[in-house]
Amino acid sequence: MIRPGAAEIAAAVKARRQTARSVTEAALADIAARNPRLNAFTDVTAARALARADQIDALVAKGLDPGPLAGAPFAVKNLFDIAGLPTRAGSRINRAHPPAEGDAALICRMEKAGAVLLGGLNMGEYAYDFTGENAHDGASVNPHDPRRMSGGSSGGSGTAVGSGLVPLALGSDTNGSIRVPSSFCGIFGLKPTYGRLSRHGSFPFVASLDHLGPFARTVTDLALAYDAMQGPDPADPAQTPRRAEPALPGLNDGIAGLRIARLGGYFEQGAGAEARAALNHVAQALQVRAEVALPHAAEARAAAFLITMAEAGALHLDRLRSQAGAFDPDVRDRLIAGALLPAALVIEAQKVRRAFAAEAAALFAQADVLLAPATPCTAPMLGEKWLDLGAERVPLRPNIGVFTQPISAIGLPVVAVPVWLAGATLPIGVQVIAAPWREDVALRVARLLERMGAVAAPLPKETT
Amino acid sequence: MIRPGAAEIAAAVKARRQTARSVTEAALADIAARNPRLNAFTDVTAARALARADQIDALVAKGLDPGPLAGAPFAVKNLFDIAGLPTRAGSRINRAHPPAEGDAALICRMEKAGAVLLGGLNMGEYAYDFTGENAHDGASVNPHDPRRMSGGSSGGSGTAVGSGLVPLALGSDTNGSIRVPSSFCGIFGLKPTYGRLSRHGSFPFVASLDHLGPFARTVTDLALAYDAMQGPDPADPAQTPRRAEPALPGLNDGIAGLRIARLGGYFEQGAGAEARAALNHVAQALQVRAEVALPHAAEARAAAFLITMAEAGALHLDRLRSQAGAFDPDVRDRLIAGALLPAALVIEAQKVRRAFAAEAAALFAQADVLLAPATPCTAPMLGEKWLDLGAERVPLRPNIGVFTQPISAIGLPVVAVPVWLAGATLPIGVQVIAAPWREDVALRVARLLERMGAVAAPLPKETT
Repeated sequence: MIRPGAAEIAAAVKARRQTARSVTEAALADIAARNPRLNAFTDVTAARALARADQIDALVAKGLDPGPLAGAPFAVKNLFDIAGLPTRAGSRINRAHPPAEGDAALICRMEKAGAVLLGGLNMGEYAYDFTGENAHDGASVNPHDPRRMSGGSSGGSGTAVGSGLVPLALGSDTNGSIRVPSSFCGIFGLKPTYGRLSRHGSFPFVASLDHLGPFARTVTDLALAYDAMQGPDPADPAQTPRRAEPALPGLNDGIAGLRIARLGGYFEQGAGAEARAALNHVAQALQVRAEVALPHAAEARAAAFLITMAEAGALHLDRLRSQAGAFDPDVRDRLIAGALLPAALVIEAQKVRRAFAAEAAALFAQADVLLAPATPCTAPMLGEKWLDLGAERVPLRPNIGVFTQPISAIGLPVVAVPVWLAGATLPIGVQVIAAPWREDVALRVARLLERMGAVAAPLPKETT
Repeated sequence: MIRPGAAEIAAAVKARRQTARSVTEAALADIAARNPRLNAFTDVTAARALARADQIDALVAKGLDPGPLAGAPFAVKNLFDIAGLPTRAGSRINRAHPPAEGDAALICRMEKAGAVLLGGLNMGEYAYDFTGENAHDGASVNPHDPRRMSGGSSGGSGTAVGSGLVPLALGSDTNGSIRVPSSFCGIFGLKPTYGRLSRHGSFPFVASLDHLGPFARTVTDLALAYDAMQGPDPADPAQTPRRAEPALPGLNDGIAGLRIARLGGYFEQGAGAEARAALNHVAQALQVRAEVALPHAAEARAAAFLITMAEAGALHLDRLRSQAGAFDPDVRDRLIAGALLPAALVIEAQKVRRAFAAEAAALFAQADVLLAPATPCTAPMLGEKWLDLGAERVPLRPNIGVFTQPISAIGLPVVAVPVWLAGATLPIGVQVIAAPWREDVALRVARLLERMGAVAAPLPKETT
């Protein structure tokens, strides 16, 4: 079976070399065959997908353009509303919810661009996770080694794209949940600027920090999906209403004139050997020598922890009171702690966050792009509870996000790019970080790295 | 002694009928004579005022225009920075602070318009007060009855303007602290839209709710001061950067075309006889029959209480830990309770606030101006601890703001207008509330009421 990218599928469908139905049927057969091992999908919307594929084919037959993602399969983390399914958000509790009446805004936009939804994807309970494990559904497994983590909380999205089940997936990133699975599964992931994409029709985690975004195996596919999803949505009052600023047109423009620097200090100290080597690899490819620092990154991360605990605790308070036993115990204990946190700490945390945003804004006066590791290590073994972070042995689950969390705390756009070091058996990601609203710049850098062959998302050997 | 308004003083100074120095000297003499009884001023900046007056006179002598407030005396609640003085914010603790290096942004703007600063004014400790009492400095007293409260927390501002010590004063309003002293002291007060005026150089109370604004004895003076203070200030990152929208040019345009309604329900239920009569009086003058409701006002007020406690608790946490005994005990206990509040409650409160803002926005599709009482009663006796609110006997101190608190919770602009009912010995205020950023509309309504003689700020008999 060939596993082309979304852009190639759309080109083939529009040129009538292939039907959307045949693409969809092949993808559904692949899911049926491999998902039992990979555990990426929790819901497969086969009938809907085939009906949608037939619509695409009908448009093509009439000579109409079904859009830039014509016939491209995609799937979504199961915190996105899918009409007719309860929005489980990785939980057992939500399965008793009534089915969603409509689709999430971003699903509508992807379908409007011609993409075909194949289903909902596994995730950490209520998105409070960096491992890709799930107490109710089991772990989505790493496409490059099934004994290893996919990364969380958008683990199913990482597994589905990394293994080639779909060329595109959507996920969410509150403290790193797009960038961590991108790193562990060896794919590209975009966490856009906070407020860029509509969150309408998605189950929240931390309103102050939640971002939605796409995963893909190529930068072009990532930009295609991102462009399809941009633009104001009056149904999301928390979105920053901002006109679409398509990234695709300038994607191949290169990086002349861009000032790129690597983040030192905090972002080096906890990095393991592979994370350092991956950052060096990307920096060398881009001929980056400048190193800059964000001196208050540790404080910003602490602030993100407190805000996460408190807002998530508040969100789940009624459920904690009435159904504590139905939670994943690891998630529940952090939510209870969050609900009990004194307000004064959270208010201080918001101040720290604002000060850190100002610190970063000052840095963007000197540099257009910042490079940092995405994770301190490659994908750990499933069930692993400890992580060696620099000289310290720390609990693994909360610390995988050590490098992602300070960046999402202030809503900066990031493309996670996958690096395969010479002789490596596992990939690891690097964060390409831009100033607010400059996703286009991060995507351009990622695209150049991809053209140079410095970063890539090859499929696991068994599937090629 | 005559006590003209700011507009009249400026006209006389500019026409050389009077010098700014003579105005300033007379005001300083009046303060020296009467402040020991009134207790409005905590700091008198006599040397600075005389020097500034001489500058104004020098400009006039050269044929230059010193601005629309030329030579008009003003004073500020002592939470505004005054260069060379510690910013006490009503506290004992802050007196040990180093002197402020510069003036608050709004003082600079008032002086740029020609006004002359006479000093700092008494206030409730750290602004957590509705009475005008102060555990360290004693109460600023009501200009119409020295046994009664001035209202807080900008009590000194109310006393100073109501008694004619100055034609203009600045104060702050977090839950009602401009509107309550306006009501008790019988003067006009403007609480602008949240984010309108710079808070740079003022001691905070609740960052999410703090507003600064002016007091005056005429609507024209209120608009003059407001116009002088408008416009973006890069030094205040929390300000909404919005160009100045002067209210004075349209002040006498009347109310043709404005849809005015009174707020029923919650805003009637707790109102005492005088408050109801004052609202009826204003509504009749404006021929208002429409009545509308904000069904979640009580919830919004509860939210404002929680946000106030929590943010103020966070702000003062270090001082509570190290110097608890130096606080006013009534203030301290509320701050400690706030610092211990669980974060989940405060996060819920912010959600309630956002929902209430949407409820009000929908109402402003039907009405341009809303009328409500400013306080449930006229000025209580100093030391009074209880208030009859409808059928309930409740603690006085937190409940004076029953009608102001829901409105400031969502940052709406309000002009408090003073009503003297037939035969009354004390004034009481009515809130003229407009949609966000429409201070001009509220001021126009207040001005028409003033021209009709329905509202006015007469000086106490002894002073006329």
